[in-house]
Amino acid sequence: MQKQLKIGLIGVGVVGSAVAKILQQNKDIITARTGVEIVVKKGIVRDIKKHKNATIPLSQSVDEVLYDNEIDVIVELMGGVEKAYNIAKIALSQNKAFVTANKAMLAYHRYELEQMAKTPIGFEASVCGGIPIIKALKDGLSANHILAIRAILNGTSNYILSKMCNEGWDFSSALKKAQNLGYAEADPTLDINGTDAAHKLLILASLAYGIDSRPEEILIEGIETLSSEDIEFAREFGYTIKLLGIAKKRGDSIELRIHPAMIHSQMPLAKVDGVMNAISVVGDSVGESVYYGAGAGGEATASSVISDLIEIARGKMPQGGQMLGFHTSQPLSIIPKEQIQSSYYVRILAVDTYGVLEKIAAVLSRNHISISTFLQKPSQESKTPANSTSNDKNQKAKILLSTHTTTESAIQNALCELEALEVVLAKPIIIRIEEA
Amino acid sequence: MQKQLKIGLIGVGVVGSAVAKILQQNKDIITARTGVEIVVKKGIVRDIKKHKNATIPLSQSVDEVLYDNEIDVIVELMGGVEKAYNIAKIALSQNKAFVTANKAMLAYHRYELEQMAKTPIGFEASVCGGIPIIKALKDGLSANHILAIRAILNGTSNYILSKMCNEGWDFSSALKKAQNLGYAEADPTLDINGTDAAHKLLILASLAYGIDSRPEEILIEGIETLSSEDIEFAREFGYTIKLLGIAKKRGDSIELRIHPAMIHSQMPLAKVDGVMNAISVVGDSVGESVYYGAGAGGEATASSVISDLIEIARGKMPQGGQMLGFHTSQPLSIIPKEQIQSSYYVRILAVDTYGVLEKIAAVLSRNHISISTFLQKPSQESKTPANSTSNDKNQKAKILLSTHTTTESAIQNALCELEALEVVLAKPIIIRIEEA
Repeated sequence: MQKQLKIGLIGVGVVGSAVAKILQQNKDIITARTGVEIVVKKGIVRDIKKHKNATIPLSQSVDEVLYDNEIDVIVELMGGVEKAYNIAKIALSQNKAFVTANKAMLAYHRYELEQMAKTPIGFEASVCGGIPIIKALKDGLSANHILAIRAILNGTSNYILSKMCNEGWDFSSALKKAQNLGYAEADPTLDINGTDAAHKLLILASLAYGIDSRPEEILIEGIETLSSEDIEFAREFGYTIKLLGIAKKRGDSIELRIHPAMIHSQMPLAKVDGVMNAISVVGDSVGESVYYGAGAGGEATASSVISDLIEIARGKMPQGGQMLGFHTSQPLSIIPKEQIQSSYYVRILAVDTYGVLEKIAAVLSRNHISISTFLQKPSQESKTPANSTSNDKNQKAKILLSTHTTTESAIQNALCELEALEVVLAKPIIIRIEEA
Repeated sequence: MQKQLKIGLIGVGVVGSAVAKILQQNKDIITARTGVEIVVKKGIVRDIKKHKNATIPLSQSVDEVLYDNEIDVIVELMGGVEKAYNIAKIALSQNKAFVTANKAMLAYHRYELEQMAKTPIGFEASVCGGIPIIKALKDGLSANHILAIRAILNGTSNYILSKMCNEGWDFSSALKKAQNLGYAEADPTLDINGTDAAHKLLILASLAYGIDSRPEEILIEGIETLSSEDIEFAREFGYTIKLLGIAKKRGDSIELRIHPAMIHSQMPLAKVDGVMNAISVVGDSVGESVYYGAGAGGEATASSVISDLIEIARGKMPQGGQMLGFHTSQPLSIIPKEQIQSSYYVRILAVDTYGVLEKIAAVLSRNHISISTFLQKPSQESKTPANSTSNDKNQKAKILLSTHTTTESAIQNALCELEALEVVLAKPIIIRIEEA
């Protein structure tokens, strides 16, 4: 009889049912590639009445899989943080392998799981469902010190930014379209504000740098404040804007951050449009390599879940203690937010009168920030008919500038001082510029 | 004492010395990631006098590593086919693991090696040095039936095509520039005529489809015959031209081919410029994912060699018999060249007189080929002053057209018939069009 690997599936939603379906549909190739038949013994759902067409045996009690001695692997696809973490702990304590797509739970508990595990833990599906980036970092690039990771980790944000940058849409129309197409949730907050991307970046940073950090400890900014003027400025200077997760080595420390970034239109990441995800990794020997694919979707994510199951079936996935694949006696440290270095784009709304530029320049200079490019134009709202006098006191000017490299604390200081100027009419907006 | 993995390095050229260097430079991280120290015990070179600054012990006799019981892994970086294959056989018979970057040797002997091996065989470096595509196909995408692979596998050709398509260079200037920059060999034949790419495609096709095929059995065309008119036509219709390796599933059979292809400018592969390589893989569950990076270069290739050594050190690389990772009782078959299906671009040089179009159309129609787009213009060479009569018998016309999907045999038949027409002045040129 064919050797079997039996799994318990907790959560049979979009991804869970795709896992069951693909295990069935691609049984021929999966068995050929492992010598083992992978079988879902039972799926756990919240409300069994809602799954009338299920093709696998269902139950509402997680205990039925967690404590079933015949089950070799628990696949957790229920989401949430603490409840899922609890299930992981029980699964590991029962000496079952554990496979998860749960990035939020791993963003908080990946090191605790690694420490307690004596069985394999697979989490390829937790970062960019359709891109095997976990295995690339653990295996393919294992000879490298990773110098930088720059990644488009959230499809919803990338869809919105693509519409804004390529087709001139405004933020809210693009968001509405994304929701209509099913790319964005009814409540898109975690996608838009960078939290979802941060969860994924933390997992990648652990693989690349062995860094234990939580979302609260890193710089996270979303795309909500971007305006079409920012997009235009970017285009004018050869940039496009992407929501990037960035992990970068500086000496023995690591910068970790999520924010909208201006990147040169020629960089590979600049060409990634729509809901697609992509991860650029720079290794000290391999140089840059880029991984591109679907970031979400039931079948793409299921493909990654099953790749972990196959690795387990082959006996190739490391036992506990090596989940994150990186162990060094000298752990790297995280650079505090305020010491992050970048160049910046700054948008300032000011009164259009003499002396304004001087005052703004003085603030920047006092904070040791030097200007790289500068653009001033009358604000849209204050455009006046051709016959009005240019000394009108209500005239407003938009000042757009970019800086040379400086620190986060210098720019934040400068922003406060700028906002306090009487001639500045609103809190200035910044976008970080990411040079390759 | 630290556990050691001892290797014998056959060939200490660009890649070999990079392997030795990186093993030394990144020892900290490699040891941290494996728990094992990887040490080059001896390097084998042809002429020891030429390696005065070597940092590893050298010898001129391969037997010194092949029959050294202390050596665990033979790393073959000497190139060539039969001699390298012999060395592989001896290494395997001595129960050593075997790691190679030798695509030409694998293009001929991969299945023989797999059959005899009782130890691991690593060959990540044999296809696109800086892209971990072997591991992606074996592990990351293992849940998928692979529907198609389309890949830019040769950096030299891609550099030349980028110059021709993006900057309007002609073939020979672009080739000269590539040679000056060290991207092309003094004899660039194997890069330009598609042979190098074919070796790599055959390896990928084995991983995806378990197909044992040799270069002689597949359609291979190079980029030598491309003209700037072809590039212009491509641009006019929204295409760019790339030398593609294509492996595609049609029912239970596989199309395998290397040739210049027109692809839509919006496809991810169309945006891969210069010496970079990229591989697009379409899986039935994961959809399309694309892998981009350096295709060659000492350090990038060494990074892949070492990733194999790390996998061996971790005990994760499968023992013999699973080198190609795919076993099925029902092997897929290769579609004969003449049954390959594609749409085509055709360039015809003809006499510019009445009735020509009719004759060409008749040939196509007789071969059941239907026309998709059509463009006729006076040939450059025959451009006449404005006051000449248009009935001049020496007038030539360039006819550029694209077809709907047809078979290779139909188009080849049509080409012969076209060439035989009195009004057609040269053998027509075709370029296959590859739709995503």
